[in-house]
Amino acid sequence: MSRIYNFSAGPSTLPKPVLHRAASELVEYGSSGQSVMEMSHRSPEYDEIITKCQSLLRCVMNIPDNYKVLFIQGGASMQFSMVPQNLLSGSGKADYIVSGMFSKKAYDEACRFGKINLVATGKEYNFTRIPDIDPAKYDPEADYLHICENNTVFGTRFTQLPRSSAPLVADLSSCILSEPIDVTKYGLIYAGAQKNMGPAGLCVVIAREDLIGNPQPGLATMLDYNTYAENDSMYNTPPTYAIYIMGMVLRWIEEEMGGLAGMKAYNEKKAGVLYDYLDTTSFYRAVAEPACRSIMNVTFVTGDADRDKAFCLQAQKAGFYNLKGHRSVGGMRASIYNAMPIAGVEKLVAFMKEFEAANK
Amino acid sequence: MSRIYNFSAGPSTLPKPVLHRAASELVEYGSSGQSVMEMSHRSPEYDEIITKCQSLLRCVMNIPDNYKVLFIQGGASMQFSMVPQNLLSGSGKADYIVSGMFSKKAYDEACRFGKINLVATGKEYNFTRIPDIDPAKYDPEADYLHICENNTVFGTRFTQLPRSSAPLVADLSSCILSEPIDVTKYGLIYAGAQKNMGPAGLCVVIAREDLIGNPQPGLATMLDYNTYAENDSMYNTPPTYAIYIMGMVLRWIEEEMGGLAGMKAYNEKKAGVLYDYLDTTSFYRAVAEPACRSIMNVTFVTGDADRDKAFCLQAQKAGFYNLKGHRSVGGMRASIYNAMPIAGVEKLVAFMKEFEAANK
Repeated sequence: MSRIYNFSAGPSTLPKPVLHRAASELVEYGSSGQSVMEMSHRSPEYDEIITKCQSLLRCVMNIPDNYKVLFIQGGASMQFSMVPQNLLSGSGKADYIVSGMFSKKAYDEACRFGKINLVATGKEYNFTRIPDIDPAKYDPEADYLHICENNTVFGTRFTQLPRSSAPLVADLSSCILSEPIDVTKYGLIYAGAQKNMGPAGLCVVIAREDLIGNPQPGLATMLDYNTYAENDSMYNTPPTYAIYIMGMVLRWIEEEMGGLAGMKAYNEKKAGVLYDYLDTTSFYRAVAEPACRSIMNVTFVTGDADRDKAFCLQAQKAGFYNLKGHRSVGGMRASIYNAMPIAGVEKLVAFMKEFEAANK
Repeated sequence: MSRIYNFSAGPSTLPKPVLHRAASELVEYGSSGQSVMEMSHRSPEYDEIITKCQSLLRCVMNIPDNYKVLFIQGGASMQFSMVPQNLLSGSGKADYIVSGMFSKKAYDEACRFGKINLVATGKEYNFTRIPDIDPAKYDPEADYLHICENNTVFGTRFTQLPRSSAPLVADLSSCILSEPIDVTKYGLIYAGAQKNMGPAGLCVVIAREDLIGNPQPGLATMLDYNTYAENDSMYNTPPTYAIYIMGMVLRWIEEEMGGLAGMKAYNEKKAGVLYDYLDTTSFYRAVAEPACRSIMNVTFVTGDADRDKAFCLQAQKAGFYNLKGHRSVGGMRASIYNAMPIAGVEKLVAFMKEFEAANK
């Protein structure tokens, strides 16, 4: 039995040293005589784990003191409603850019809670690039501008952030921790953990303090950012084990991968191996336009749906899992998050070449 | 290093064989070549895990087909708002019985979403027993009646269910799976996993089909029970690893503990060891009145706050953790959920006797 190469879009592959460490201390964590899963979230043992996780995230991402770090449940999907229900507190209006499937979902949900302005959408070219933005389309009264920075399904990303006068709210689920970012350019960041941070069931929100604390009337306590901000994410029991794993992933980034600068170099190298090959062959074609290519999710097709299907089947037999593209794009998608080793990408390209030679 | 006896009220001790098995397959689950944490929630490997977990729960609890089993995030605290926002769909009124800290929280949250009738509260005797219920106090138009069946903080429980014409909604967080129940007597059951089912970050809802599907207008998609019911709890990524652990806990109950009948006998025996001693000594005093005693959370005091403190400190040194009572009760609380071995309770009583002898 050996570990597969797992190209899943999420939940996805985790760093091997993190898994081995988690396995070794699953029954008894250090000298605590208990599993992390069994720890009271109010115990000193667990307090150290959650405090360290938060301080490591602050350190790795260089998060300024005027931003709160919140550990919330429900995934990014829960944020699709929490964001408007917490931030539509001025004009009740917001700008949204729809650049893929999840930003469309975020837009649809927000429309239920305020007057939402669709600044731009890439629907007409099936989201193969980030839509052009006409600054005249921004609503000058918008309480915020929402984007999804990396589009998991389509394999595109914003290579530069849109500029508007409203605070920027960004879904970073599939690119957080993949490279350094300037947190001060954002009003609020949210990201599900299950791609680059840890197991599913944890969503991290990084919010500028002045933006929270004025939710829509009648909002459920558990949907109010202030509930988390005022209680250090401990109003009720947080997803304790997921936070513990996330702490180890952060340590791995810091100690093994050279922080986010090192992570970016590694990720660009990995993505380069795939895109370079895709650009030299006519057998496969990269889906995303070159200027908008994601370094986390690489989408490609052969141009023949049956051949794509055969590719995925044979790839799985060779140990490359979850390469089937999302149904709205078809073809293939290789999600190469932080924890995907470069060897996995190199071997995938070798397999792609073999498949090409056998099927040309 | 050896495992402690962990009397935490939640998260709490898990069955040792479950932890050992989880450790052994953390890096690679079976022949899948990946950790359960890394599995795509849409993969056949994971589908088997979540499907088995649900069918085991249905089997162990004997859940009828007209009840949906939903896996939701946010803990019981999220249910405090989801219940009224989903079920106040008739008169917009509901009955609540306040028998402890969490039912008070549930009541307070519900008051924000409808006209809530406080049928009874045990506040005047600090919740040392389940309040008497005057049937005349029920609102004949109530959409539901809400109780918290076992009161974690105060160590009391309903030994018989209140009878009203409205569907019964019950928070079973600290007693689910501790004994057989008749699910048909309930309209909706909810329970955070972190006491008797698995790690924190998962909440199980068991809902009679006819009660869901008519939420309050404008409810967030992720707060609508139908979102979970219509998508087999897979509208977005569920807390995959917590569900996997829960499946193993259910197998342990079924295969090692004799199902819920066996579990009940074991739990009554464990609680009996503690209560029997408490009833024969004058050094300690059980807090909960005999007719309402929980078999999951045993609260007791020495009657002297300093002595209580000394007890907890010395107990911890002897390997008995998290015995400090909740601040609203003081004294001690031994949470003896399903996974607490009887040896832990017997040794605790032996320690209590030693402490009594040394401090009388």
